[in-house]
Amino acid sequence: MANIQEIARLAGVSTATVSRVINRHPYVSDLTREKVLNIIEQLDYVPNSNAKSLKNGATKVIGVMGVTYNPLLMSLVRSFHMISQKYGFNIMLFMTDGDRDKELVALEMLRSKQVDALLCLVRTIEWDIIESYTKYGPIVTWQRLTSDTIPSVFMDQYQGYTLGLEYLYARGYRKILNVYSSKGQNTLERIRAYEDFVQKHGLKNTGFPQFHNKVTIHDGEEIARWWIEQTDKPDAISCSTDEVAAGILTEIQRSGFSVPDDVGIMGFDNTDSAHLLDLTTIHYPVDKQAENAFNIIMSMLENSASNLHPLQFRLIERKST
Amino acid sequence: MANIQEIARLAGVSTATVSRVINRHPYVSDLTREKVLNIIEQLDYVPNSNAKSLKNGATKVIGVMGVTYNPLLMSLVRSFHMISQKYGFNIMLFMTDGDRDKELVALEMLRSKQVDALLCLVRTIEWDIIESYTKYGPIVTWQRLTSDTIPSVFMDQYQGYTLGLEYLYARGYRKILNVYSSKGQNTLERIRAYEDFVQKHGLKNTGFPQFHNKVTIHDGEEIARWWIEQTDKPDAISCSTDEVAAGILTEIQRSGFSVPDDVGIMGFDNTDSAHLLDLTTIHYPVDKQAENAFNIIMSMLENSASNLHPLQFRLIERKST
Repeated sequence: MANIQEIARLAGVSTATVSRVINRHPYVSDLTREKVLNIIEQLDYVPNSNAKSLKNGATKVIGVMGVTYNPLLMSLVRSFHMISQKYGFNIMLFMTDGDRDKELVALEMLRSKQVDALLCLVRTIEWDIIESYTKYGPIVTWQRLTSDTIPSVFMDQYQGYTLGLEYLYARGYRKILNVYSSKGQNTLERIRAYEDFVQKHGLKNTGFPQFHNKVTIHDGEEIARWWIEQTDKPDAISCSTDEVAAGILTEIQRSGFSVPDDVGIMGFDNTDSAHLLDLTTIHYPVDKQAENAFNIIMSMLENSASNLHPLQFRLIERKST
Repeated sequence: MANIQEIARLAGVSTATVSRVINRHPYVSDLTREKVLNIIEQLDYVPNSNAKSLKNGATKVIGVMGVTYNPLLMSLVRSFHMISQKYGFNIMLFMTDGDRDKELVALEMLRSKQVDALLCLVRTIEWDIIESYTKYGPIVTWQRLTSDTIPSVFMDQYQGYTLGLEYLYARGYRKILNVYSSKGQNTLERIRAYEDFVQKHGLKNTGFPQFHNKVTIHDGEEIARWWIEQTDKPDAISCSTDEVAAGILTEIQRSGFSVPDDVGIMGFDNTDSAHLLDLTTIHYPVDKQAENAFNIIMSMLENSASNLHPLQFRLIERKST
C-alpha cells in the first residue's frame, strides 16, 4: 500500500505538507492541496484513521446523548453542531429514550475512545455512574447538576417560570392553570416557582388539576378540550412548551373561543411555533447554552480557560395574553 | 492491561460470551451480562474499539451528510436514526451547507472506515466524484438520481406538485403563484409540473414573478408582504414548504385579510406547522423514505435483498383552500 513518503515524493512536497492535507489543516494552498489529493486518488491511498486515532487518541467526534426531536432540543443540537463543526468536530447522536442500555452505549463509546467527549441532554442512569466515566473524557450536561466532574450549562427554571407567572399576574390573571413536562428537576423547579408565586400573592387554591408529561401540540389539543368542558375555567394557562401552547391556542380557536379574551396563553422556549402564532412566551437562549457546552468541552480537552456567555431568560410579549 | 481471557476466567464464562457482552449482542442473559460487566468494571478493561474496527472493519456508524435543520429533513433524520438504532447503528451528522470541503470530510470518513455507509441528503459535489467513493461502502441518496452504484429513495416531485395544482384547479383557482425552494432537480421537476399544468388547462400567463430559494417562515412572511402590495393578486399560492405557507398565512391574516376567502394557500410536506394552522398540503412520507434508505444500506452491507415500502404523495385537504 502507498505510504505518505511516496505521496510526498510524487507531489514534490514534504511529508508534513501531505499530513496537513490529509488532516485538513487550513494552511495549505489550494494548488498544493489539489496536487496532493490527486496523487492520493491515483495511488488509492487510505489514511488509516483508526490507526491514526490509536496514535493521537482523538477522533474529533463529540457524542450527543439523549437526543429527542422536539424543537427546543433540535435548536440546541443545531447550535452545538454548528460550533463543533467550526472547530473541526463532527457529532454523533445517541437517541436514548430514557433507556439505560442505550445510555450505556454512549458512555461506553467515550470509554473506548470512539468519541472524544459527551454532551448529555437527558439521562436516566444515576449521576454517580455517569461520573465514573469522566476519567475517559469530558462529559458536560444540559440538566441541572452540581458536580465536581460534570459541568452543567443548565438554566434556573425557577427564575424563568417565575418571570412568566409574574407577568400573567401583572396582566390581571388570577386563575392560572399549569402544564408541566416530564417530572425531572426542571419541572420540580417550575412547581416550586408556582407554589411560591401563589403564596407571595395570597392567591386561593384554584382546584385545577396539574397536567404532567405534556410537551407536544397534540397534548395541547387535549388540554384545550379539557378547558372547553370546564364550567369554572382557568383565565390563563402557563405551558411547558410553545408546542403545548400552540396546540391549546389553535384548538380553542377552532371551537369558537377567542384568545386572549377568553383565556390567556403563555408558551415557553420561544420557538418558531410561538413566532407563527403570536404567542407570549419565555425566550430560552439555547444557542448560547450550546456554545457554552462546546466551550467547556474544548477547555477540558485542551486544558485551557473557557469563555462563557451569560445566560438569561427573557419575556417575549405577543398577542396570546 | 486486562484481557478478554482473564475476564472470561473470572466470570466463569467463555471468551465468546465476553465478546458478545462487549459487542452488545442481544442473546446474552441479563444475569450473565451483569456479571461480565461487573468484572470489566473492576478490571477497568477498555475494549479497544479502534483496534476492533481495524479487525472487523465495521464501526456500526452511518454518516448522514447534508444535514440542515428544517422540519422535513429533521423528520427524515429522526426516522432514519430510529431504525438505525433498532439495528444497533449510531448515526454521525455532517452539516455541509453546500460546501464541497465539508462534503469531502464525510466522503473521506467512509473511505477511511470511520463510518460504514453514507446517507446523502443534499450535495454540491458532482455525482461522479461521489460515485468514486462507493467502492469504500454503501452510499444512498435522497436526491433524484439514476445511478448504478448510488441507489436513490427520491420521490417524483412532478407527480406530487401536480397533485396540488390539479386540486387547486378543481377548487376554481386560476391565478396561481408558485414559490419554489433551492434550484435543484426537485425544483426543476416542480417547475415542469407547473408548465405542463398551465398548458393542459390552457391558462394564460399570470405575469407573476417566480419566487426561488424560499423555505422558511420568514420567507413566507416576505411573500405575504409582496402579495398585500399587488393590485392584481394571485388567487392561490402553491408553496415549496409548509413553513413558507405558514409564514404567508399568518402574515396575511395579521394584515386583516382572510384565508381562503382572499387567497388560497397550499403547503407541502405535511409537517406540524400544517397541522397547527389547518393548511391544505401534500403529505410527504419521509418516514417510509428513511426506512427504505436504511433497508437499502443494510442489504448492501449484508449482501441481502431489501424489502422496500411503496412511496406515494397524498393530498391533505384542510381549511386554507
